[in-house]
Amino acid sequence: MATRSNTTAPKKRYRVGVATVVVVFTIQEEALKVLLARRAREPFRGRWALPGGFVRPDEDLDASARRKLGEKTGVTGYYLEQLGAFGQVDRDPRERAVAVAYYALIPSDRLVLRPSKSADAAAWFPVDEPPELAFDHEAILETARERLAAKLDYSTIAFQFLPETFTLVEVQRIYEAVKGEQLDKRNFRRAIQALGKLKATGKKRRDGFGRPAMTYRIKGPKDVEIIK
Amino acid sequence: MATRSNTTAPKKRYRVGVATVVVVFTIQEEALKVLLARRAREPFRGRWALPGGFVRPDEDLDASARRKLGEKTGVTGYYLEQLGAFGQVDRDPRERAVAVAYYALIPSDRLVLRPSKSADAAAWFPVDEPPELAFDHEAILETARERLAAKLDYSTIAFQFLPETFTLVEVQRIYEAVKGEQLDKRNFRRAIQALGKLKATGKKRRDGFGRPAMTYRIKGPKDVEIIK
Repeated sequence: MATRSNTTAPKKRYRVGVATVVVVFTIQEEALKVLLARRAREPFRGRWALPGGFVRPDEDLDASARRKLGEKTGVTGYYLEQLGAFGQVDRDPRERAVAVAYYALIPSDRLVLRPSKSADAAAWFPVDEPPELAFDHEAILETARERLAAKLDYSTIAFQFLPETFTLVEVQRIYEAVKGEQLDKRNFRRAIQALGKLKATGKKRRDGFGRPAMTYRIKGPKDVEIIK
Repeated sequence: MATRSNTTAPKKRYRVGVATVVVVFTIQEEALKVLLARRAREPFRGRWALPGGFVRPDEDLDASARRKLGEKTGVTGYYLEQLGAFGQVDRDPRERAVAVAYYALIPSDRLVLRPSKSADAAAWFPVDEPPELAFDHEAILETARERLAAKLDYSTIAFQFLPETFTLVEVQRIYEAVKGEQLDKRNFRRAIQALGKLKATGKKRRDGFGRPAMTYRIKGPKDVEIIK
């Protein structure tokens, strides 16, 4: 951090620890999964938690979240969005700490999990059956899941889960995994094609049922667009 | 496994100031307005800013935002929603400080502005023509405005601006003020009535054009509902 004089700051200002916490979603085996790390330290030693850690003096909040995620997964270029701040007075048993929570979406073909000093294991868990979590991470996970499900209806956010090329069955499975319900195949295909964001590659590969199916790629940049 | 040379938890944890900042919107004279307070202290003394202040040890973030707003306006029971955390390293010239921003909606019939120790004036400004603001408050205001405009399309959030009873013209003026565009009267009335949230009072009063118009009230609790 650039050296900055504290002389004009009030002497008694109350300061707290600020951590970033990231809810990392992926799709595996047609299920929405979340990345969890097992804590190797107190508090909550041995319990699973969302990846995260305290912000450093020289880094912005987004940078802190990306650093934490890079340490855990090695991936870059993924979609990251802030969920908000979680600051209940007693959420950390050590001292007052505010968590700024994010969620990230990672295609299932880009996963490398790395243990670290603060976590002795990292693993993907189905969002429907998470273990007991440390701190207020269950509330953060629930908020992230609600945000993702809501955003599915008015944006192209689901495309962030897709690998480079994919079949329409794979796209449908992603929507179904996030929504937790089965969708009508014909209606889904009509709606997804109407977005005008998919481009056929001209090559087929076997879909989930072993039949040859056309593969597609995303047209243009893979940004999250709002659907009006 | 990746070794992490520089992520060992420091013995003395890095702590920062955490403030809550509230973007308070109302509708006055058919325009969307925001509450600003003029700073009586450094930094940015004399400049206008969003109401806010540092979180106290014993209060949650939401409580801190409501306290700040109560001090400025005296109102209670209004809609308050967190926008997110703003934590650029250099956003406060004194020292590192993270702002957790909220936005609130207040009907125009419930306004009492109070000056305070830290502000020598408080006033409503048209959102389209704000003065130069302190800190990163212009970015926070812009984020709040975008969130509000987006939410108008898929929720009943605009009803939070309404007084106890109102005419349909007044409802339309609120939507137009937030969206910054004129709406077709017949289409608007059809869409707003289709929500099934308005109940005619049976009493008329003069609308904006001096003609007698039916007044309405919100049916049931005045919550913000998502429109599917």
